[in-house]
Amino acid sequence: MVPTDDRQMWQELGLDLEAHDGLLSVLGQAYEDVYLRQPNRPRAMEYFDFVVSQIHGLRVRELLQAKERGRKVVAAFCVFVPEEVVLAAGGVLIGLCGGAEVGFDLAEQYLPQATCPLIKSFFGFKLARLCPYIELADLVVGETTCDGKKKAYESFHTLAPVHVMELPQMKNPADRVLWRAELARFVDRIEALTGNRITDDALREAVGVVNAKRRALARLAALRSADPAPISGLDALLVNQISFYDDPERFTAKVHELCDELEERVARGQGVTARGAPRILVSGSPMAIPNWKVPHVIESCGAVVVGEESCVGSRNFRDLVDEGPADREALLDAIAERQLRIECACFTPNAERADTVARMARELGAHGVVHYNLSFCTPYAAEALRLDRQLRGQGIRMMRLETDYSQDQAQVRTRVEAFLEMLAME
Amino acid sequence: MVPTDDRQMWQELGLDLEAHDGLLSVLGQAYEDVYLRQPNRPRAMEYFDFVVSQIHGLRVRELLQAKERGRKVVAAFCVFVPEEVVLAAGGVLIGLCGGAEVGFDLAEQYLPQATCPLIKSFFGFKLARLCPYIELADLVVGETTCDGKKKAYESFHTLAPVHVMELPQMKNPADRVLWRAELARFVDRIEALTGNRITDDALREAVGVVNAKRRALARLAALRSADPAPISGLDALLVNQISFYDDPERFTAKVHELCDELEERVARGQGVTARGAPRILVSGSPMAIPNWKVPHVIESCGAVVVGEESCVGSRNFRDLVDEGPADREALLDAIAERQLRIECACFTPNAERADTVARMARELGAHGVVHYNLSFCTPYAAEALRLDRQLRGQGIRMMRLETDYSQDQAQVRTRVEAFLEMLAME
Repeated sequence: MVPTDDRQMWQELGLDLEAHDGLLSVLGQAYEDVYLRQPNRPRAMEYFDFVVSQIHGLRVRELLQAKERGRKVVAAFCVFVPEEVVLAAGGVLIGLCGGAEVGFDLAEQYLPQATCPLIKSFFGFKLARLCPYIELADLVVGETTCDGKKKAYESFHTLAPVHVMELPQMKNPADRVLWRAELARFVDRIEALTGNRITDDALREAVGVVNAKRRALARLAALRSADPAPISGLDALLVNQISFYDDPERFTAKVHELCDELEERVARGQGVTARGAPRILVSGSPMAIPNWKVPHVIESCGAVVVGEESCVGSRNFRDLVDEGPADREALLDAIAERQLRIECACFTPNAERADTVARMARELGAHGVVHYNLSFCTPYAAEALRLDRQLRGQGIRMMRLETDYSQDQAQVRTRVEAFLEMLAME
Repeated sequence: MVPTDDRQMWQELGLDLEAHDGLLSVLGQAYEDVYLRQPNRPRAMEYFDFVVSQIHGLRVRELLQAKERGRKVVAAFCVFVPEEVVLAAGGVLIGLCGGAEVGFDLAEQYLPQATCPLIKSFFGFKLARLCPYIELADLVVGETTCDGKKKAYESFHTLAPVHVMELPQMKNPADRVLWRAELARFVDRIEALTGNRITDDALREAVGVVNAKRRALARLAALRSADPAPISGLDALLVNQISFYDDPERFTAKVHELCDELEERVARGQGVTARGAPRILVSGSPMAIPNWKVPHVIESCGAVVVGEESCVGSRNFRDLVDEGPADREALLDAIAERQLRIECACFTPNAERADTVARMARELGAHGVVHYNLSFCTPYAAEALRLDRQLRGQGIRMMRLETDYSQDQAQVRTRVEAFLEMLAME
């Protein structure tokens, strides 16, 4: 049951109440089917279940209260938008809704039909008035990571205030200069938005907060190398997804609570499957809430997902910002330096990614890699063909899976089953 | 009939002779059907007909002879690869084959299925061993103008020597610094390739040669504003296509010969259609030889194409490099400055392009705009939706046409006829 005051809040945010009721009802049912019916869940997942149940409720209220106290809310969905800068200016960075097939017909008035579902979804959520975050955000921050997003933000300007960061496409010295200039331009924009000057101390503290979140996520990721895996891939993905929405300090504490429990499980040899169950590393395009299709199908087939080489996964937490520098400019240098280590397919070349996927597969004891590609996500689709060859050369099997947000579970399942059968025969 | 020594040359280049014979035969027939049957062609088109007939013959032989004399051949297909630099180092810049559905099955082993046909075609020509230019080229120069090409060149590295230039995605001061650094890196690479240092004099001379070519193409473009148009859109497109293949000085002279004839035609009121025929401006993705489908369909319906807002068109020749600077570095600054005025959809934002299309439509007396989009060319597809609204606001009608290299002339014709009927009713 939705509290009455939540409905009033959504109405005040301008949401389409009737359609939003429908969305929450579908989401609630999906969450029950996909998440709550999983066996052997860690107790500490209760917190994350609660967050999902309140994702358009309490968390939105918290953000509105923060706004009343003068904080600004910045919305984005890319790991290249530096949360450290937003936090240091007293702002809040949150993810945009983008994981469901919502308002695609409206979105296609702005976007080419052959656009990836993540982009169509974030437009659709805005145009169908179903995302409270975009409605309460003071600024949307885009980036030029792919043609689809780059050109989409040009149109999004007409729907919301947008700042676009230009990500370079290589990692040469001139690119580092460009990206550092973009960080400076972002700092200016955030300072103007919040009215707060970003001090040395505030930025150092913010770097600490975000690094702490990354350390917690890295701890969770490492625990998944145990056999049996102490947590399902679905639950681990959810934690990574929520890292883009929740208050960072509360979130970090809750992830550590979860990890404490998982450590006990590992010590006891307890897991979500029997020991020896097929283990899959997922690599590729990001999965935004509530895009759980592929891990759900994989785990419904008796396998367990043990890692995500993804922006909603390892690319978000693997490296830390150097906490050594004392002053703001040097900290910004360090933030830029960390970001340009991210192995996003938007870069050319991006050869290190293949090594990372192979290393993760080995470290996590994966039997195979499922390369997940959002439809029309050209950068990852292009890398997938090469990655397949490179991994095969190292004796690692990979399956390329390209899908959108449609209800094609049956087809995905057929392919996943065939892949698992092939792995079992090796 | 193909001279025997041509076949020997192709064999030595490693072409698949049998498939190449088939290609030339299809091309020859297409050229006859599309080009040679046009009514009222200018006499001076004979030169360009000859160039097409010899595009894999004499021109290839010329390039091989240039190589024997120590010149290097650089292949590319983008207006951001500066011909001036290649010429100044004693090299030759030529276009890559990319306008026909050739070897797509082979190309899809390297490229996502949802890749634009231009990219699939240039891979396909290489993999099917059908493009003499790629076989004789000493270096292929790519760029990061779109996700498709950016990621494609990563794979092309395994097939040929490749240098990739990073085009920035905005036109801010930091982007100008990046692009200028890329030009410097390109100069280094070309100097290393050719063994020639690019001197002040050589670069100034090369700027003059390429500017002269642009002036000739601009003269041709301006003559098309006459009613009746003195040249068909097909013939004008062909001249623009050949500008990427032919020796620049010879080409410039031949374009001026053509323009002299067209000026006489205009003075006499002579054209390729009756006065008052529907006039169409084509805008959007580039059309590489032998991609003539859309203008052929438009002109078969009784209309005339009067301009191309395209990289194979106005974006290639509109602006000139400042010939004022005396020294190399200042000339390179001027080359960069001109390039960053190009209104390619790879930039964000790219708002000036809408003004350009509207101005061209007015200046050329176009009754409507056909926006031509290669399938899966996201940057232009994204701009098309906005451009349509912007032009409509100025009373200019636009039709969005998205197609690949398949034989869908009948569908294209149905849409073009409907558009022309709508224009006629206004």
